[in-house]
Amino acid sequence: MKIALVQLNPIVGDLKGNASKIIEFIEKAKALSCDLVVFPELSLMGYPPQGLLKLKDFVRDSQAALQQITGHTDGIGVLLGTALRDDENGLYNAALLIENRRVIGYTAKRKLRVLGSFDEACCFEPFCGTNSLVFRGHRLAVAVGDDVCSDVQCGDVDFIINISAAPYRYGQFKRHNDILARTAKKIGVPLVYVNQVGGNDDLVFAGTSRVFNEQGQCVVQAQPFVEELAVFDSNDVGCSLPCPDEDISWMYKALVLGVRDYFSKNGFKKAVLGLSGGVDSALVACIMADALGEENVLGVYMPSRYSSDHSKQDAQALAENLGIKYRVIPIEDIFKEYLKVFNGLPSPVGDVAEENVQARIRGNLLMFISNREGRVLVSTSNRSEASVGYTTIYGDMCGGLAPIADIPKTVVYDICGYINRDGEVIPHNTLIKPPSAELRPDQKDEDSLPPYDVLDAVLSMYIDDGLSVDEIVDRGYDRSLVCKILNMVQRSEYKRRQAPLAIRVFSPMEKIVRNPVVHGYRWE
Amino acid sequence: MKIALVQLNPIVGDLKGNASKIIEFIEKAKALSCDLVVFPELSLMGYPPQGLLKLKDFVRDSQAALQQITGHTDGIGVLLGTALRDDENGLYNAALLIENRRVIGYTAKRKLRVLGSFDEACCFEPFCGTNSLVFRGHRLAVAVGDDVCSDVQCGDVDFIINISAAPYRYGQFKRHNDILARTAKKIGVPLVYVNQVGGNDDLVFAGTSRVFNEQGQCVVQAQPFVEELAVFDSNDVGCSLPCPDEDISWMYKALVLGVRDYFSKNGFKKAVLGLSGGVDSALVACIMADALGEENVLGVYMPSRYSSDHSKQDAQALAENLGIKYRVIPIEDIFKEYLKVFNGLPSPVGDVAEENVQARIRGNLLMFISNREGRVLVSTSNRSEASVGYTTIYGDMCGGLAPIADIPKTVVYDICGYINRDGEVIPHNTLIKPPSAELRPDQKDEDSLPPYDVLDAVLSMYIDDGLSVDEIVDRGYDRSLVCKILNMVQRSEYKRRQAPLAIRVFSPMEKIVRNPVVHGYRWE
Repeated sequence: MKIALVQLNPIVGDLKGNASKIIEFIEKAKALSCDLVVFPELSLMGYPPQGLLKLKDFVRDSQAALQQITGHTDGIGVLLGTALRDDENGLYNAALLIENRRVIGYTAKRKLRVLGSFDEACCFEPFCGTNSLVFRGHRLAVAVGDDVCSDVQCGDVDFIINISAAPYRYGQFKRHNDILARTAKKIGVPLVYVNQVGGNDDLVFAGTSRVFNEQGQCVVQAQPFVEELAVFDSNDVGCSLPCPDEDISWMYKALVLGVRDYFSKNGFKKAVLGLSGGVDSALVACIMADALGEENVLGVYMPSRYSSDHSKQDAQALAENLGIKYRVIPIEDIFKEYLKVFNGLPSPVGDVAEENVQARIRGNLLMFISNREGRVLVSTSNRSEASVGYTTIYGDMCGGLAPIADIPKTVVYDICGYINRDGEVIPHNTLIKPPSAELRPDQKDEDSLPPYDVLDAVLSMYIDDGLSVDEIVDRGYDRSLVCKILNMVQRSEYKRRQAPLAIRVFSPMEKIVRNPVVHGYRWE
Repeated sequence: MKIALVQLNPIVGDLKGNASKIIEFIEKAKALSCDLVVFPELSLMGYPPQGLLKLKDFVRDSQAALQQITGHTDGIGVLLGTALRDDENGLYNAALLIENRRVIGYTAKRKLRVLGSFDEACCFEPFCGTNSLVFRGHRLAVAVGDDVCSDVQCGDVDFIINISAAPYRYGQFKRHNDILARTAKKIGVPLVYVNQVGGNDDLVFAGTSRVFNEQGQCVVQAQPFVEELAVFDSNDVGCSLPCPDEDISWMYKALVLGVRDYFSKNGFKKAVLGLSGGVDSALVACIMADALGEENVLGVYMPSRYSSDHSKQDAQALAENLGIKYRVIPIEDIFKEYLKVFNGLPSPVGDVAEENVQARIRGNLLMFISNREGRVLVSTSNRSEASVGYTTIYGDMCGGLAPIADIPKTVVYDICGYINRDGEVIPHNTLIKPPSAELRPDQKDEDSLPPYDVLDAVLSMYIDDGLSVDEIVDRGYDRSLVCKILNMVQRSEYKRRQAPLAIRVFSPMEKIVRNPVVHGYRWE
């Protein structure tokens, strides 16, 4: 059997556009004489559809789009992920097998998933029927999402097909690859894995669709982070492919894809961001230039009386290295007007209100440019500062998207190292100077925060590994410092609630459950 | 049997504080010679605990707090809502029956609930055991939350006890009251309903704990919106009480309680808000004065060149009527500095960037006051404008809390009418003038939006009733207008993602599923 794996990049909710694309790929698979073409989980609506599935109009329109696709299935089998309304049991996250304009079988997801803010159980019913479908005499075990790990049994099956929309998380590729390989080997039949690709809101999907033979060897491997059609011919299996190395370039590519799709799927072309001369804005500028083209990115340097000379030089050098547009707007005159209002004279008294208003003036300037020039503002927050609230709400937190708000500061440096692998793109000085918000004289991040390597280590044990304070202390950290950090995380929830979308490629989504904004729990 | 109903107002996460309060009420119930004292669902952690339940430290500390409570149960039965770790099955949303320092029985919630962003299934396992407990020879059917509607059967039971943390939603009291009354009558035994009271984040709990006799008549009724202990003596049942009328005063009280608890549970005392002379800021100012005391509220009027004379008069009259602090800060000089940066001269060209920056200057001024004076900024957005995105992000959307962001504009007027029931608190002119943002000459909301009665009617059919466009059109609305409104709602999701906490007393929480920020679905 010849099977086309289509790792589709759908636009969530764009039923017409997604249907057109699906039809194009079906025609392509026909031209390649495929017997069957397989699309990812919920391809027709794009993953995650979230509240759209609650809209009667949307579910009705999805039926019409499905009809259109069905009309293109003469002589080919199509295994399509879509929502399926069963009048008795509700909505399923289904895999429909369609051939010659007829749905000849279906199955659906059994173990529904909670993914950040999207709880599949809000919209779908868990499926209790069979996952066995028969196509042209071949017995297919079809699993949606993680059902492949639990619900496929040895026995009367010729192929396992796993359609998925699994968000990319850095460092998890090999583990997941091994699970699929083991499953293929255990059941002793080829396993076809087809995953969504592209960015949708805060999620990025890597694709990496692939086929394992009955020995668990990978024999087909689609490119990561690219929409494509790959072909598996069970009568002409090629040689075993090596498992690709997931290095830091994958994380960078995921961020670029997430940004690019946020813009293109929204119909936006141009971006603006503040450049401070620091490492966060430098990395975001690189991502933006890669995602949108340097001609579409504007970096704005907004010095105050507290800005150092090197900041301007570093910001300008970065803009030149990248070839992005660059503008300088001093905030001093506006800052003085605020000081006059509150201090009488245009001179500072040196409190946190004055620090924050500088960041907020910058936010206003950038939003003015955004509104006037039709550029989307991107925020340059990183995970370390967002976690502990070391950031100005309505200031540097402004933006439609926060490309690196899920990346710890120490990892920001690692990615910058990757960007500079063949020569200086990010100025060397940006990478070696101590981080500073430059909102008061001689300010350094480490005046307010622990060193970033310590902060990130503690945050990772808490956020990523779910350790208790005792367990973190057992790993060699000071109890009072750990409690201080965890209390900062809990107390700054109110800021994160108003934060822009972050592209999530680092933190484990399944561990993210919202904390209350107002609560009385404190570590001691 | 003499039963104390404690409608507790816990602070979410404050295990020590909640335990102390619970112990105080136990002692009070002992002093009243009660046999049994009943606390609401998850009393010990406060509802909704959200992600706190994922913290190992928190679950461990809750065990210690429970031990402390157990020590105070000599001679009295305590039915306590708390999370219970069962090493085999995970965490339950449980009701523990404790007497003489021993847990003598427990049951737990079967049907877990999704409540806005808190999915109980994230943290709890559904309970499959019995809900029958025996206390001093009496057979109790104990139901947590909505389990009372489905899981209590006729038969061997003497009392039904329903512990709950049901968020208040305006207009639902009678329906819920009737369900409980019918249940009591159907099973033919007294039903004791104990509900949480107070505000936690975006939710308000009304209390309204009560007891129905075996004929379904209400015989004990706790005050709504007040923490209190009520007593039911099954051997001395009083006469049947009339069902209280849920009028608009309940909605107002819920908003005031939500604000008061947000502040007090956070340890905040003072608030600041922008006064525009319009109806939204007038209502919020009234709520704040009621919640915090007029001496703790500062209203700031921030005129621009587009502000009308009546705005200033109306803002000032309101502040005087309420007795709150009042300040005037013109934004003109700061606005001119922005115009100089972007237009060269300090004169406007009249685009949306200039409109928005005025709102954002006001946001910055208010946040400056917030930071310098330790006042929490409250936003004055209403549901109508938040739904369609007729609001400036980082401008009038700034704030830690948005007291009326769940209240439609037409209902805002209704509540204002209630506030003025005994005389003018909100200036008459504020209530009769056409709404305007005053960000350009002669601007009116209706230049950009449909009349509010039409807008609110369509939004209500869509948000509250979940109707399709066809169904809304069938009720007499123009299709292109309905599509325009629904598309505005979908397109402004990005703003709502960055909005402050709204106090939710109007929209049905169970219908709120997040929409994607980036998606391609459009109504046509």
